[in-house]
Amino acid sequence: MFDNSDRTEIAAMGEFGLIQHLSQHFENKHAKTVKGIGDDCAVIDQGDHFSLVTTDLLLEGVHFDLSFHPLKHLGYKAISVAVSDIYAMNGMAEQVMVGLGLSNRFSLEAVEELYAGMQIACEHYGVDLVGGDTTTSRSGLVLSLTAVGRVAKDKIVYRGGAQPGDLLVVSGDMGGAYMGLQILEREKRVFMEVPSMQPDLEQYDYIVGRQLKAEARKDVVELLKMLDVKPSSMIDVSDGVASELYHMAKANGFGFHVYEEKLPIDPQTLDTALAFDLNPSIVALNGGEDYELLFTVAQSDYEKIKTMPDFTVIGYVTDVTSKNMLLTKSGNQFEIKAQGWPESQKDS
Amino acid sequence: MFDNSDRTEIAAMGEFGLIQHLSQHFENKHAKTVKGIGDDCAVIDQGDHFSLVTTDLLLEGVHFDLSFHPLKHLGYKAISVAVSDIYAMNGMAEQVMVGLGLSNRFSLEAVEELYAGMQIACEHYGVDLVGGDTTTSRSGLVLSLTAVGRVAKDKIVYRGGAQPGDLLVVSGDMGGAYMGLQILEREKRVFMEVPSMQPDLEQYDYIVGRQLKAEARKDVVELLKMLDVKPSSMIDVSDGVASELYHMAKANGFGFHVYEEKLPIDPQTLDTALAFDLNPSIVALNGGEDYELLFTVAQSDYEKIKTMPDFTVIGYVTDVTSKNMLLTKSGNQFEIKAQGWPESQKDS
Repeated sequence: MFDNSDRTEIAAMGEFGLIQHLSQHFENKHAKTVKGIGDDCAVIDQGDHFSLVTTDLLLEGVHFDLSFHPLKHLGYKAISVAVSDIYAMNGMAEQVMVGLGLSNRFSLEAVEELYAGMQIACEHYGVDLVGGDTTTSRSGLVLSLTAVGRVAKDKIVYRGGAQPGDLLVVSGDMGGAYMGLQILEREKRVFMEVPSMQPDLEQYDYIVGRQLKAEARKDVVELLKMLDVKPSSMIDVSDGVASELYHMAKANGFGFHVYEEKLPIDPQTLDTALAFDLNPSIVALNGGEDYELLFTVAQSDYEKIKTMPDFTVIGYVTDVTSKNMLLTKSGNQFEIKAQGWPESQKDS
Repeated sequence: MFDNSDRTEIAAMGEFGLIQHLSQHFENKHAKTVKGIGDDCAVIDQGDHFSLVTTDLLLEGVHFDLSFHPLKHLGYKAISVAVSDIYAMNGMAEQVMVGLGLSNRFSLEAVEELYAGMQIACEHYGVDLVGGDTTTSRSGLVLSLTAVGRVAKDKIVYRGGAQPGDLLVVSGDMGGAYMGLQILEREKRVFMEVPSMQPDLEQYDYIVGRQLKAEARKDVVELLKMLDVKPSSMIDVSDGVASELYHMAKANGFGFHVYEEKLPIDPQTLDTALAFDLNPSIVALNGGEDYELLFTVAQSDYEKIKTMPDFTVIGYVTDVTSKNMLLTKSGNQFEIKAQGWPESQKDS
């Protein structure tokens, strides 16, 4: 079945090429399908509004490690990951569905923990759990999430739509979830070598929390509405800002200039990166799973957003096609390359 | 993490108990959420119509065996499984999303085969592939499917809603997919013992096709519309008719009487069951994956459906609470029990 002749490794497709390659023969036939592959959500015309639908797959050993990820936190994070894509379209999430593949290693109590976390998240985001599919799994824990939301037709924001000169803004801070993961993996290695060592994670509470219990930025969508600002383009930060900029530049047809000195990095992220001998700016650009919102606004909206402590203008849209540059503190320019073959490649 | 104290095995939850148990603390908060957990699809109010959303998880080693399941057929079947739930609500599927977990054992050509099958299915059912999520998998192939459809508010059919005296109808025939699986698994065993033996599946083409390349009954929904028949309740046959009757009886509050002599069984299914020393009626009732539609209609609709060759009246709704009985050819009665812990437990 898996004959090696004429075999092309998937990795050889390069960055973000697989879905694009596979979907090239698919054509949308329904007039109601407003947007298919190629954004954070699929967009469906429901008459007086749009529905937004998104799906995510979270696999044990790829997206989470149960040796340090408490199931309750994982349940919470899974819902966050799902609804984050709805917020990235400037919509509100209303329903989620959960597919669950369970090995017999899981007890009822373990699954209850997972669901307890999901329930807290559903209440936090104001979404209804409306069903799913539960099955046995021969291997690890499998979680598939589907979120459904809605947005007014004149409020929807896509990945593309920015114009040269628009400002590039990010909510919250960058790179924390990635450094939290480094801490957790280090403590796991220590524990496996010296089981009597109890990890002291207190000094890393912020970044560890960013990794284990991600928050989706529903509040950012609400704040933008309150400020009467409609972004010209938007995406959520799942794979990392560098990857998201790649997607946005591709969808916009224009690239970005990003100022290194503007990157919002929490002191805990900064200190931990330096302790790990990592460049904090690289961590901020390439570290994924922050689930912040990355968006562009017209310069005329600058007055409305400039005093918002949670928004940072980190750059602007250039008139150069699809090329993203980092302008460093020392005055140099480097091209921002998207990560290599990512573990998860989200395409609507 | 997996402390064995206070451990309850999931299997001990018994039939269909897990999702019900887990979801008991979840309450729907959105007025737009018309139906959450407990039917083939979630139902969302979109103003002048309902949206239907459903999700399925298909895992290698649980739901399919790649040693005999061609990837193209698997792609086709995956889409069929997803849209079948939409048809079970009397709706039309319009969009699907695919989550894909791939191990590095898969070449690009293999994934192309999978997608080629999906594309044929999408064209056949008239649905748009509108996105998904692709990720690496440390273990086997993982497929998660989400289907979205729509139905007029006055045309929606739930699992519940039947009245005593309503007729129980099934489309197509029963048990074929299960017997096809028995043939494929037997040939696999033979092949592993004597690799030079080439399987001759020609005489089993119908039942093997039922297993490998399932068809969802979009045509049944169209036919019912043409006949101006709205079923009083409906479900699709994924786990097996016995399990589906359990769900319907629970949702209706009434049980069913099923006539053994009426069960539609294809000659190939019958012959193969007998060759395997299996009771064909048991195969018909408990064999899953036929993806036929099982529905109830008022007796006044009998004239409209009686000449349809693809519809078989197999029983009726009783006034007995939630108990399903098989009335045998020999005049005996047996209670129809749902299967034990099913491999896949679908709940909207």
